[in-house]
Amino acid sequence: MKLITYLRGNQSRVGVIQGEMIVDVGDYYPDILSIIKAGDHGLKKLNEILKSNPVQRPLKRESLLSPIPNLGRNIFCVGWNYLEHFNERTRKDIDLPASPTIFTKATGTVAGPYEEVPLAESFTQMFDYEAELAVVIGREGKRISEEEAPDYVFGYMSANDLSARDVQQQHGGQWFMGKSMDKSCPMGPWLVTKDEIEDVQNLDIYCKVNGEIVQSSNTSLMIFSINKIIAEISKAMTIKPGDIILTGTPSGIGSKRNPPILLKAGDEVEVYISEIGGIKNKIIEETVKDELNNNFYTQKI
Amino acid sequence: MKLITYLRGNQSRVGVIQGEMIVDVGDYYPDILSIIKAGDHGLKKLNEILKSNPVQRPLKRESLLSPIPNLGRNIFCVGWNYLEHFNERTRKDIDLPASPTIFTKATGTVAGPYEEVPLAESFTQMFDYEAELAVVIGREGKRISEEEAPDYVFGYMSANDLSARDVQQQHGGQWFMGKSMDKSCPMGPWLVTKDEIEDVQNLDIYCKVNGEIVQSSNTSLMIFSINKIIAEISKAMTIKPGDIILTGTPSGIGSKRNPPILLKAGDEVEVYISEIGGIKNKIIEETVKDELNNNFYTQKI
Repeated sequence: MKLITYLRGNQSRVGVIQGEMIVDVGDYYPDILSIIKAGDHGLKKLNEILKSNPVQRPLKRESLLSPIPNLGRNIFCVGWNYLEHFNERTRKDIDLPASPTIFTKATGTVAGPYEEVPLAESFTQMFDYEAELAVVIGREGKRISEEEAPDYVFGYMSANDLSARDVQQQHGGQWFMGKSMDKSCPMGPWLVTKDEIEDVQNLDIYCKVNGEIVQSSNTSLMIFSINKIIAEISKAMTIKPGDIILTGTPSGIGSKRNPPILLKAGDEVEVYISEIGGIKNKIIEETVKDELNNNFYTQKI
Repeated sequence: MKLITYLRGNQSRVGVIQGEMIVDVGDYYPDILSIIKAGDHGLKKLNEILKSNPVQRPLKRESLLSPIPNLGRNIFCVGWNYLEHFNERTRKDIDLPASPTIFTKATGTVAGPYEEVPLAESFTQMFDYEAELAVVIGREGKRISEEEAPDYVFGYMSANDLSARDVQQQHGGQWFMGKSMDKSCPMGPWLVTKDEIEDVQNLDIYCKVNGEIVQSSNTSLMIFSINKIIAEISKAMTIKPGDIILTGTPSGIGSKRNPPILLKAGDEVEVYISEIGGIKNKIIEETVKDELNNNFYTQKI
């Protein structure tokens, strides 16, 4: 099942994708998180609705929001999880970590699958893309074994872990600040429930900038599998329904290409994962509020 | 004003401290976050209640919860913010960062000021303390200057950034996992509004383990001031009412002492900050749920 959060008028509603149409289920569930929390009952209920010959509405891509627009906590992220990308690292004195490299992106990074993303030009001169498979957690748990981990997954999304490479190297080497610019994590286009994906560790993953492929890999090449990541994160921390885990990006990031590709206003970045779908975000000049005069202007690029 | 969240029966209620008594304001505000979001009006309303000769109840310390028990996102933390503590670092190849070292603790780390904290013995063999001043944000903002920063502060708490030193060095050097064990961030005992503190950059800060002073410093010795930290965090990220920022710990952490002090079950750890107050947490064996037999046991120490 492909679950969406979309704007109908001014209202955020939940729907299920049927081909190129939407079945609105907003009268039953206010948001996708409530479907996740309803567990097996939630998906059973949705299946009943779909079988009842419901009204279908045309899918307008520009109406899609991030499937989980309001997060309860930061997004979990895994770094250096594809070997070829690890070999692109700046600090060559760092050895391949024995455990996944885990950091977070702040809640304000959430952006829709087709939303415009502002370039914080006063903050970074190295704005970069990262195509990533996002995992959405379905159940609360702790000390989850790799074998049990699939039971804790609700579904998957495509995501772009937009990153300020120069800022990542600041702040004592902790990546959080260079990863937490507002709207720097577009996700979607929908949340695909796990039953739709035959083998999540065998999906093609691409990134395009202005139509050119810049990353191309397969989730089979992850160093740490999704099951291993869930086991690691939950060793001493309880995971919760609706938690989002980004599972790392393959090689080909812009800052390490020759010549480099640094994102600028006007660029269009796409992330596509097979069996899930694609997101496409245009980078725009950042609008800055002039508090003194209470008006808005764009930063010069 | 000293605001508390406390248990009255089974219910979490909000109160204001008056000497050794509580004035319950739970009929007006369901939680402290709603007081923060009410802005100046919120504190004005509380002052009116206090002047109306309200019922006072005795303060029972064991009923106190963390002032903001339910976080909307991870706790912001600053590392290496006292020079003498920076000099204790493991990796001597790292130079003093030009910008504050910022990372996060997960939302599940919240613990009350007198709550027992489980030692995740299967996760860490180096469980350590860090006395820290916590800042609570009062207003939404972005690109806040150092001069404007005080306007965005609501108040202050004492906090203990309990850390798994061995785990901090894993995960590719990103500290998040070694900082995010459930209940590893006791806070309180109350949220002191900023008007009560004459100079927040001149407060004594202590940590005691089993009654012995192990950290003793003053917030005047921070490398990056609170105003500077707020300016840095908000450069490209919107900060929100209720956000919590831990501002770093002074020297004297247990793992770097000779001989080291590693926290074990039974230890009592206190953090005290002048003009704010103290928290005291006992470290206990972790209770592990045996999912197969649906019962609980404690891990052997």
